[in-house]
Amino acid sequence: MDRDNILLTPGPLTTTLRTKLAMLKDWGSWDSDFNALTAKLRQQLLDIINDQGHYVVVPLQGSGTFSVEAAIATIVPKGGHLLVLDNGAYCKRMAKLSNMMGRKTTILSQIEQEPIDPDTVKAALQADPTITHVGFIHCETGTGIINPLVAISELCKAFNVGLIVDAMSSFGALPIDSQDVTFDALISASGKCLEGVPGMGFVFIRKAILAKCANNSHSLVLDLYDQHLYMERTGQWRFTPPTHVVAALAEAVQQFIEEGGQVARLARYTENCKMLLDGLSEQGLKPFLNPDYISPIIITFLAPTSPNYDFKTFYNDIKSQGFMLYPGKLTDIETFRIGCIGAIGSKEIRQVVDTIKYCMQKMKIN
Amino acid sequence: MDRDNILLTPGPLTTTLRTKLAMLKDWGSWDSDFNALTAKLRQQLLDIINDQGHYVVVPLQGSGTFSVEAAIATIVPKGGHLLVLDNGAYCKRMAKLSNMMGRKTTILSQIEQEPIDPDTVKAALQADPTITHVGFIHCETGTGIINPLVAISELCKAFNVGLIVDAMSSFGALPIDSQDVTFDALISASGKCLEGVPGMGFVFIRKAILAKCANNSHSLVLDLYDQHLYMERTGQWRFTPPTHVVAALAEAVQQFIEEGGQVARLARYTENCKMLLDGLSEQGLKPFLNPDYISPIIITFLAPTSPNYDFKTFYNDIKSQGFMLYPGKLTDIETFRIGCIGAIGSKEIRQVVDTIKYCMQKMKIN
Ligand SMILES: Cc1ncc(COP(=O)(O)O)c(C=O)c1O
Ligand SMILES: Cc1ncc(COP(=O)(O)O)c(C=O)c1O
Repeated sequence: MDRDNILLTPGPLTTTLRTKLAMLKDWGSWDSDFNALTAKLRQQLLDIINDQGHYVVVPLQGSGTFSVEAAIATIVPKGGHLLVLDNGAYCKRMAKLSNMMGRKTTILSQIEQEPIDPDTVKAALQADPTITHVGFIHCETGTGIINPLVAISELCKAFNVGLIVDAMSSFGALPIDSQDVTFDALISASGKCLEGVPGMGFVFIRKAILAKCANNSHSLVLDLYDQHLYMERTGQWRFTPPTHVVAALAEAVQQFIEEGGQVARLARYTENCKMLLDGLSEQGLKPFLNPDYISPIIITFLAPTSPNYDFKTFYNDIKSQGFMLYPGKLTDIETFRIGCIGAIGSKEIRQVVDTIKYCMQKMKIN
Repeated sequence: MDRDNILLTPGPLTTTLRTKLAMLKDWGSWDSDFNALTAKLRQQLLDIINDQGHYVVVPLQGSGTFSVEAAIATIVPKGGHLLVLDNGAYCKRMAKLSNMMGRKTTILSQIEQEPIDPDTVKAALQADPTITHVGFIHCETGTGIINPLVAISELCKAFNVGLIVDAMSSFGALPIDSQDVTFDALISASGKCLEGVPGMGFVFIRKAILAKCANNSHSLVLDLYDQHLYMERTGQWRFTPPTHVVAALAEAVQQFIEEGGQVARLARYTENCKMLLDGLSEQGLKPFLNPDYISPIIITFLAPTSPNYDFKTFYNDIKSQGFMLYPGKLTDIETFRIGCIGAIGSKEIRQVVDTIKYCMQKMKIN
């Protein structure tokens, strides 16, 4: 009766039992065993971006947005100017928090249906030489679109501006190789494609810019420079770490490696994504995006046009059958989203496709 | 061989297996079941301060310091002036973060050996009428001293200044009744005397001041006013909650209630504290503070004067026997600390006293 539902959400997501079991231990946050756990995890994260000694990674308590705000606070100086490339909800949030902390912020808005266009970005950089940093969302989870990381990284290099990448929902699944892309900061979190539980983020920072980051932050808790110095010196987090979350992430990363790293994970998520698109198109459900732009992270589907459709009923009905979908995040168009990520594979996707079909028939949709 | 060590630390601490088992489930953060969990937990927290409808409680991701910074950012307006009552390390941290966010901050420093003296505070408030808020640490965990909450609350009322209480390590153990004390904000966290796992804090805010808190915060993620409005409207956290940590805290609070609430918890911790003081005094170990000032939260002991003593060896030896102590936090005097809190009672304290005795003999101390 009490079997857990499968989450088809972009995080928190379904994790393995092995990951969750790692939380059945209380760690002393001051203790050397815990410091060793943190150190090993940080090295493994650096390995995922194929770091050759040019980056550090700084963990931070809180949700992913805490790490986005911390990255901007730490990297962009008080007199800096951030250009946020906007094609969705998380782009707008980045601009909002940058504004709130008093950084000069310009939003370059593009339509949500298309990936960020490098030519438009180039024109904006040419037009305003006061821009010091670009804020970029790799996978805009609001729609599920993939934005062109390599092209934007090349542009930033050419214009000599810093690049801050929100790779929250892409890190671990999409390829991000520090030999191919250069960034000042890149952000992700525990509860996304690494398949840990939520509660911490982490920010890769380029060593070459670290020294300039001192005293940028408006906030003690969000000061990644200070956290970095402290961790280098003591091996410890500055403030109480979410020990159980850290232990779960360490265990999740171990399984990530055993599965075959980013390549294997991308293959599994891509298969999940394809099965969802194919299976649901048979039910008449269409994705919001052009299939070329869809990430294997999360798919936005247009709501059925049938008058019998209502998201709440649809959601609750599918939930009662063991699966949890995700609401849409678009303001103008009615949509819902289905995540492809988490400790799920073709078996679960097969089941959810069948369940959606069953529930649509029951609701007399289409 | 692999039995977990007992933590004698001020958080993270030893939690019950029942609390940890609550983390073996993945919750959808958008789902109504999780909203219900959050709502019930918030009501139970309000019950602990015996709220009669005058307070709200706002949860926040991150460690306790995140909630302290958020409380000051949200409550003290940009033109405000915070007087921080300082008799230890956590007081100094509060002053530092308040300064960093640009709030005018005055530190009233007193000696670490004595509780905050209300008469000195009164004189400071009389001398400077620009002070708008007082920052106060209930139990200064750096030494373990209890500061006079009721007296300071009375003073703040008389001077019509707001009171911000860091009750991080006291909440749930020491009595805090909203009928006896008035505060603008009171802060604690999951991994302290409620015996949850670390990863979230919560801030009680007086409803009467809420409306004035809009747009005070320098930070999006730390804006408790915005989080409060959002949660009232949607039942949800603004950003991904640490779902497993929240579930563990909910389970821990359930056990708190079953144990008999704050009164029972204080009784257990007081017994732990007494057994530690008595047992270790037989070994010649003396507390740093006058026994009248010692909280049943954590005890600072003076390091043994024997030339054979060395904290690292002492710590590792005791750890190898199954117990984890805590380092001192005083700059001038060598000390170590032992926590009285967590899911431990007379059995564990009896064992640790014996273990310390055994290790001291082995190390030929005294
Ligand atoms: C691209 C992106 N940025 C930022 C966030 C914010 O993360 P959080 O909800 O953990 O604060 C998310 C969350 O899904 C995201 O997908
Ligand atoms: C009185 C007090 N304030 C603040 C904190 C900071 O909490 P955290 O380490 O969770 O950030 C602590 C932690 O022990 C504390 O005891």
